[in-house]
Amino acid sequence: MPLARVYALLEPGPVVLLTTAYRNRANVMTQSWHTMVDFEPPLVACVVSDRNYSFTLLRASGECVINIPSVREAPQVVGCGNCSGRRVDKFKRFGLTALPASRVRAPLIAECHASFECRVVDTRLVGKYDLFILEVVKAWATPRRKPPRTIHHLGSGSFMVSGKTIRLPSRMR
Amino acid sequence: MPLARVYALLEPGPVVLLTTAYRNRANVMTQSWHTMVDFEPPLVACVVSDRNYSFTLLRASGECVINIPSVREAPQVVGCGNCSGRRVDKFKRFGLTALPASRVRAPLIAECHASFECRVVDTRLVGKYDLFILEVVKAWATPRRKPPRTIHHLGSGSFMVSGKTIRLPSRMR
Repeated sequence: MPLARVYALLEPGPVVLLTTAYRNRANVMTQSWHTMVDFEPPLVACVVSDRNYSFTLLRASGECVINIPSVREAPQVVGCGNCSGRRVDKFKRFGLTALPASRVRAPLIAECHASFECRVVDTRLVGKYDLFILEVVKAWATPRRKPPRTIHHLGSGSFMVSGKTIRLPSRMR
Repeated sequence: MPLARVYALLEPGPVVLLTTAYRNRANVMTQSWHTMVDFEPPLVACVVSDRNYSFTLLRASGECVINIPSVREAPQVVGCGNCSGRRVDKFKRFGLTALPASRVRAPLIAECHASFECRVVDTRLVGKYDLFILEVVKAWATPRRKPPRTIHHLGSGSFMVSGKTIRLPSRMR
C-alpha cells in the first residue's frame, strides 16, 4: 500500500503487534503506545519499555514491523502481552505465522491485516523514555471491502472494538 | 480523577481538543497524534505542527490541556480542525465553553468528558518533529455509567466511533 496512507491505519490508535528480530531470535509484543509523527515518509513514535525483550532486539537491530491485528486476533494479542519472548517462542505458542519482510529482518505476521516495515531513525529519547522514532519504509495491507474491526486498549484486559464510521465535510488530511 | 488512570482514556487513541493560552489569547486545535509515554506521572508525547497557531502558544506558555470530546462534539472537532486560531476565536465560533483550569492557564472545555492539564517537560524533539513531551499534572473526568463514545480519525473527515467493550483475562496494566 502507498506509504502516504499509513497514517489512516495508525492514527485511530489500534493495538499493534510489534515484531523484532536479531541474529537467530525473533519476538512479538503487544503495543498501544504509538503515534504518527509525520505523513511522508511516515514517521511513528513508539514506546518500548526497556524491561521488554523486544527492547533488546529493537535496540540491537534498529528494525521492527508494526502489524495491526483485528478483533479476531484478540486472544493472541492478550497472550503476547502476558509473557516474555525471553522464555517463550510466542509465534509458536499463539499460532502466529511469521512471513519474511522485504526491507527489514523482523517478520510480518500473516494473520494481521496490515504490516509496516520500520527502521529506527532517532534514538534521542530512548535513554529517558524508551521512545523510538521509526520510519516506515514499506507498507502492506490486505485489500478489504469493509474497514477491519480493530481493538483499542482500555487497560486491564478491556478493549474497545472499533465501531461504525461517520463522515463529516473536512479539509483535514 | 487519579493521574494513574489517565492512560485508560488516552491509550485507545481518541481525537482530542488541545487548548492553549498565552497572554490574552487562547486557542483550541483538533489533534490525533498523541501517545502515552509513561503511566505515573502520566507522560504524553504530542505532535503539534509549527504551522499551527497552537504551536506558538504551546511553545510560549509551556502549558496546554488535552480535552477528550465525544461523538456528540464531532461537528465542533471538524470545525476546529478546519480553521486557524490566528484569525478565528474558535471557542466563540463553535460554541465551546472555556472553564478555568487549576494548574495551567490553558482552559478546560466544559463540553468534553475528560480534561488533562499538562506542562511541557521535554522539547528535545520539537525542533525536528514538532514533538512535545507533556506531563499531566491534573486530570478531570465526568463520572459516567457507560464508557463515552469517542471518535478516532481515519483521515479526510472520516472517523471511527468507538464500539463495544470486550474483556479478556490479562495481566497487562
